[in-house]
Amino acid sequence: MSDQQEFNTIEDVKTLVGTYLDFPSEGIVFRDIFPIFRNPSALDCLLNTLVKEALDFAKKASSTKIDVVVGLDARGFLFGPTLALKLNAKFVPVRKAGKLPGVTIKHSYQKEYGSDELEIQADAILKGEKVLIVDDLLATGGTCKAAEALVEKLGATVVLNQFVIELVDLKGRDILSAPIYSAIKY
Amino acid sequence: MSDQQEFNTIEDVKTLVGTYLDFPSEGIVFRDIFPIFRNPSALDCLLNTLVKEALDFAKKASSTKIDVVVGLDARGFLFGPTLALKLNAKFVPVRKAGKLPGVTIKHSYQKEYGSDELEIQADAILKGEKVLIVDDLLATGGTCKAAEALVEKLGATVVLNQFVIELVDLKGRDILSAPIYSAIKY
Repeated sequence: MSDQQEFNTIEDVKTLVGTYLDFPSEGIVFRDIFPIFRNPSALDCLLNTLVKEALDFAKKASSTKIDVVVGLDARGFLFGPTLALKLNAKFVPVRKAGKLPGVTIKHSYQKEYGSDELEIQADAILKGEKVLIVDDLLATGGTCKAAEALVEKLGATVVLNQFVIELVDLKGRDILSAPIYSAIKY
Repeated sequence: MSDQQEFNTIEDVKTLVGTYLDFPSEGIVFRDIFPIFRNPSALDCLLNTLVKEALDFAKKASSTKIDVVVGLDARGFLFGPTLALKLNAKFVPVRKAGKLPGVTIKHSYQKEYGSDELEIQADAILKGEKVLIVDDLLATGGTCKAAEALVEKLGATVVLNQFVIELVDLKGRDILSAPIYSAIKY
């Protein structure tokens, strides 16, 4: 490793996030989380923060055990399995429709231009289970809201939504049902 | 967790892989790794096996230190960051062209129908670094071969390719340059 710096706080980790104007299209300010992944100390700090927040939250909520971590394709896959292992929970993916085999359920949602459809395997989550949803970014919240709907259709409950980055001005948190923790805010 | 079974060997883990005929299209036998992720003990066993193989391999190869784990979008993202943390290495994504900001390099490759283009951030890997590539599935090997090319364009060396599942009949390993470890074979 060329970078031996120690990362002990989320504020330290935030310094690694890259900012790109007009990517992927004009007027968009893109926040790049991948520099965090180039530094094991920073990634470890970020993941430990998400785990600690999840455990603290579960403890406050009548010692709820989080049964399932749902990760959203593709960048939620970067965090979901590690988070699930640390919480001794299942990891379950939500993907664009057509990618998951077996019996699935789907949910359509509106995007800025047109609509999109998300899918989950129907036997992946049991009725009554407590679910944490994780994704890299909370922007307008549409994708996470659709994931909440899929979990609810399976008879389970979203107890917490976690994001690495929240773009506060886009007010995504206003449309989500479950509580939200975001590690880094812009 | 409803399933409290302990998973101690890869043979145990293999029993969880789902098999679906004619998915996503006729004539394809789809192997579904997601049931492994529903069982923390099984996921832990699988990841520990990948880590052990990587460390054993590095030790044999003149005590090479693996500097970088490259994960292929999207299902390589499920394993890459955890593997990187356990190896104290960087994690670097390879994605379809157009998704990564900043200075990147691209590599086109032929697929069964048409061509595709993969991309990596140019400053993510340094010259001379030793790289492990991880993905869920080795089929015809085209995607992994393109990832090997990207790593080599950056002046680094792929020392090992790791896959959770290898479809042996498709002979993907014949077109890859670096050694290969696959945990589960069909």
